[in-house]
Amino acid sequence: MKKSEYNEQVKLTLEYFDKAGIALTDKEKESIEVIDFNQGRVKEFGLQLLVYVNTERVCAKEMVLIPGQTCAEHWHVPTNGIPGKEETFRCRYGQVYLYVEGEKNVDEIKATLPKSDVSVFHEVILNPGDQYTIMPGVKHWFQGGPDGAVISEFSTKSTDETDQFTDKNLIRSGSLEE
Amino acid sequence: MKKSEYNEQVKLTLEYFDKAGIALTDKEKESIEVIDFNQGRVKEFGLQLLVYVNTERVCAKEMVLIPGQTCAEHWHVPTNGIPGKEETFRCRYGQVYLYVEGEKNVDEIKATLPKSDVSVFHEVILNPGDQYTIMPGVKHWFQGGPDGAVISEFSTKSTDETDQFTDKNLIRSGSLEE
Repeated sequence: MKKSEYNEQVKLTLEYFDKAGIALTDKEKESIEVIDFNQGRVKEFGLQLLVYVNTERVCAKEMVLIPGQTCAEHWHVPTNGIPGKEETFRCRYGQVYLYVEGEKNVDEIKATLPKSDVSVFHEVILNPGDQYTIMPGVKHWFQGGPDGAVISEFSTKSTDETDQFTDKNLIRSGSLEE
Repeated sequence: MKKSEYNEQVKLTLEYFDKAGIALTDKEKESIEVIDFNQGRVKEFGLQLLVYVNTERVCAKEMVLIPGQTCAEHWHVPTNGIPGKEETFRCRYGQVYLYVEGEKNVDEIKATLPKSDVSVFHEVILNPGDQYTIMPGVKHWFQGGPDGAVISEFSTKSTDETDQFTDKNLIRSGSLEE
């Protein structure tokens, strides 16, 4: 993505953290990651995040989705002999439309279908204070509701480089065009 | 502690979560734990907490300290064949005076010495947005600053029942007198 797009997403992300009452250090404010899965349409398909800590055993992050922005369907596989990542999403602000493996439980999902392959439609709506634990290997995708969303993630070690995507055209990183 | 003391601490804790902008479900509001180490002086020596998730691999909590309240010096030992708990404290509101093993780095510590054995005096001051990772086995104690503190803890599985205290008179739980 262009540097200007990246900067715009960071600016929005900081506004969301502010609305959610989340305090960050100046160094953290400069460490926001913007992921567009190299699709070049970050405002509808992507994710912003800040990693607080990621050790061999524990990881914690904050994530931001702007309204309607979708994080691609993916799952976490064993990496370096350690079982796949287990993660709990906790909604801090806004609303999250989360889809996981399991029985389709609504006639019509709340999310807008992304322009990318998705295959799981068990809907979990997270409002502030709600959380959901995704076990290793479970496919999932999620989208920001009408007011966007701020989500804390509590997990085992993040090994994003081994994430598997349903849409094989995707890669996790967003790279900057200078 | 008396039920009335417990209720008072829960009420204060919910006020702190509110000030920190932390959204909780009604069920969570009824699940606040108040720890007084069975010393019967919770306002100066104790801790309030809410466990969000605690699986075999990951744990996340919010903790509240009222001004000057101290959590006893302790450390985390291997439990059920798993290395001791590793934990990251992240200050969300107020100020935390944290003391860990290591060189004494201040002439005079900011905390008021608790009426309980402490042996480590390497001072770490956490303001909102600051965090510190405590590795397994490292002794630590901490106290709420003048405005109290709200602290997120990101850790491996919590096995509080095996926590070791410097002061051998202490036990972790607070029990209610009816």
